[in-house]
Amino acid sequence: MTPTIHPGLEDIVAASTRLSSVDGLAGELIIAGFALEELAGNATAEETLFLLWHDRLPDAAELADFCGRLAAQRTLPSVTLDLLRATAAAKAPVMDALRTTAGTLSLWLPPSDDPWAEAIALTARFPVIVAAYWRLLHGEEPIAPDPVMGHAANYLYMLSGNQPTKAQVRGLETYLNTVSDHGFNISTFAARVIIASGTDLTSAIVGAVGALKGPLHGGAPGPALETVFEIGRVERAEEVLRAKIERGERLMGFGHRVYKVRDPRADVLSAAAERLIEAGGDRTVYDLARSVEETALRLLEEYKPGRNLKTNVEFYTALLLHLVGMETELFTPTFAIGRIGGWIAHCFEQREAKRIIRPQSIYHGPRGRQWQR
Amino acid sequence: MTPTIHPGLEDIVAASTRLSSVDGLAGELIIAGFALEELAGNATAEETLFLLWHDRLPDAAELADFCGRLAAQRTLPSVTLDLLRATAAAKAPVMDALRTTAGTLSLWLPPSDDPWAEAIALTARFPVIVAAYWRLLHGEEPIAPDPVMGHAANYLYMLSGNQPTKAQVRGLETYLNTVSDHGFNISTFAARVIIASGTDLTSAIVGAVGALKGPLHGGAPGPALETVFEIGRVERAEEVLRAKIERGERLMGFGHRVYKVRDPRADVLSAAAERLIEAGGDRTVYDLARSVEETALRLLEEYKPGRNLKTNVEFYTALLLHLVGMETELFTPTFAIGRIGGWIAHCFEQREAKRIIRPQSIYHGPRGRQWQR
Repeated sequence: MTPTIHPGLEDIVAASTRLSSVDGLAGELIIAGFALEELAGNATAEETLFLLWHDRLPDAAELADFCGRLAAQRTLPSVTLDLLRATAAAKAPVMDALRTTAGTLSLWLPPSDDPWAEAIALTARFPVIVAAYWRLLHGEEPIAPDPVMGHAANYLYMLSGNQPTKAQVRGLETYLNTVSDHGFNISTFAARVIIASGTDLTSAIVGAVGALKGPLHGGAPGPALETVFEIGRVERAEEVLRAKIERGERLMGFGHRVYKVRDPRADVLSAAAERLIEAGGDRTVYDLARSVEETALRLLEEYKPGRNLKTNVEFYTALLLHLVGMETELFTPTFAIGRIGGWIAHCFEQREAKRIIRPQSIYHGPRGRQWQR
Repeated sequence: MTPTIHPGLEDIVAASTRLSSVDGLAGELIIAGFALEELAGNATAEETLFLLWHDRLPDAAELADFCGRLAAQRTLPSVTLDLLRATAAAKAPVMDALRTTAGTLSLWLPPSDDPWAEAIALTARFPVIVAAYWRLLHGEEPIAPDPVMGHAANYLYMLSGNQPTKAQVRGLETYLNTVSDHGFNISTFAARVIIASGTDLTSAIVGAVGALKGPLHGGAPGPALETVFEIGRVERAEEVLRAKIERGERLMGFGHRVYKVRDPRADVLSAAAERLIEAGGDRTVYDLARSVEETALRLLEEYKPGRNLKTNVEFYTALLLHLVGMETELFTPTFAIGRIGGWIAHCFEQREAKRIIRPQSIYHGPRGRQWQR
């Protein structure tokens, strides 16, 4: 009997998780018990991390302690910083630098009895690596982390050297919370496969960063805003988009593999972008993006009626992170800074399961080759 | 309807592959069309790499070209060497150093149109990294690779600085061929999950090294020989082993999750060890190991009748690599040097499949939590 092959495993349920529920038909995302809409705009980045890792929100004392432990782990080992400098000289993309230097973090961890020490160090240092690398890449010296600032605020501060506004921090935290977990996406599954071997957390996280780098990984904001910039003026939207559709190009920022109705993350990020505008953010790009969206949805319905393509998370991620003040090359690294909370929570959940993840393969190659040389 | 969960995916066939066939009930391993027994003792390391990557053996001109291209890629970027020095100062385990420094290899690759360039560089440099790190860890300077030597011979040369004997090279090549591929083991599956995102080969290989580091990864020779050294003299074998079994300890080196009959790799490695002895290898440990094996199998049958536990690949790997002249800490890194050929072949096969690997999860956490702070 020939066994059934499940390429891509998309029809297979590999685990039960307490971390997040993705319901593409209902357009519903639950993160650790909270509907996304309930959590994303309210929690700080630290609260969401604690929630994912411990399945409850911290009380005031626990939160202060947790924030303090994260802030205390923001200093990079000198070897990591040296490697960032060398990597910047080679002009490597930010995600490549993050993958490579993240691997060094386990090597200079102070010994600790705390099972969360490696998790805290990795999480605290991801923004430090990205910000330091970004500045080195642009010929600027890294800015030392500010231990008084929160996780998200300090990231923005280390990027620019400017104190971020409250609205910017809130916008970034809403984004980080929104992408903190999303079922068994590719990078999360990669992390679980690796950690299930009994290896260290850093190995799993480095593997996840490597997978997130891939262009087929969903959720990471790629060129969604590039079309908006290419269009440039509201009046050109219809002409440019119509030409793209007629050339058979996919419109970046619309449609999702899982969500058949509106992606709930898109709503949350769209609202966050609006709040940033209300707080004085750059209205030009925002208005243009809204107009492009409206035109794109109308044209998609015209050319592909009934396909019901919606604005996806990439579109609003790009818009929100642009309004927060980030350049496109920082979008995917910032996604990693948000998703590491989920990766780590999944690694701890997988460790508790105490079993390897190892499907079967069947062989279709030749047999009986003889050595004749 | 509650969907069926397949934790560990062990009952699921995830792909069809042309690379290797593992038949645990028949005790049969086919690698790219060759029964293991036909390939392992005949092929050079380079021939097996070419075979795995191109599904046929090279002709003489192709083989010379392939060997030359591998040999030309043995120089490490200076950044990689600097990182090895820093890592050695931190006394990190060899596998941690390999995972971390392997990540740097993609950053200083010369641009190339050859789709195999990254594969060749990674494969050629794995032994260089391990040997350089091993020497740095012991306060010695790395030995420059010898471009005239083959892949396996040069690895042994870089470790010790001595020209290896023909028997040692043959022994090591038999080992590297034997472990070059083995179906969907944990590290291979991790590499396939990562590369399926469309990311670079280095990301997939770094993830695989991280998974291979895990104690639950099969095949990597751990403490199998430690029991032999602990026993020390043939006369003590029965007493020590009996005490271990009665304390409920697992005897390392016996039994395998997949192979219910004798592991075919054990036979091949056992024969290779015998040939090394015939060529003048150290008979003391060999005779002791054989005696320990015989006693262990007899006692296992006495205490666990019908379980039919056999000597596994770890036991003979440890014996063979010891006879080749390696210390225990080099066993798993040397496994990686063999398995990278299979990892890369699987990555290319997965790329051709052009689909992500992403199973589903179901959610058992709470719902409807409200934000009240």
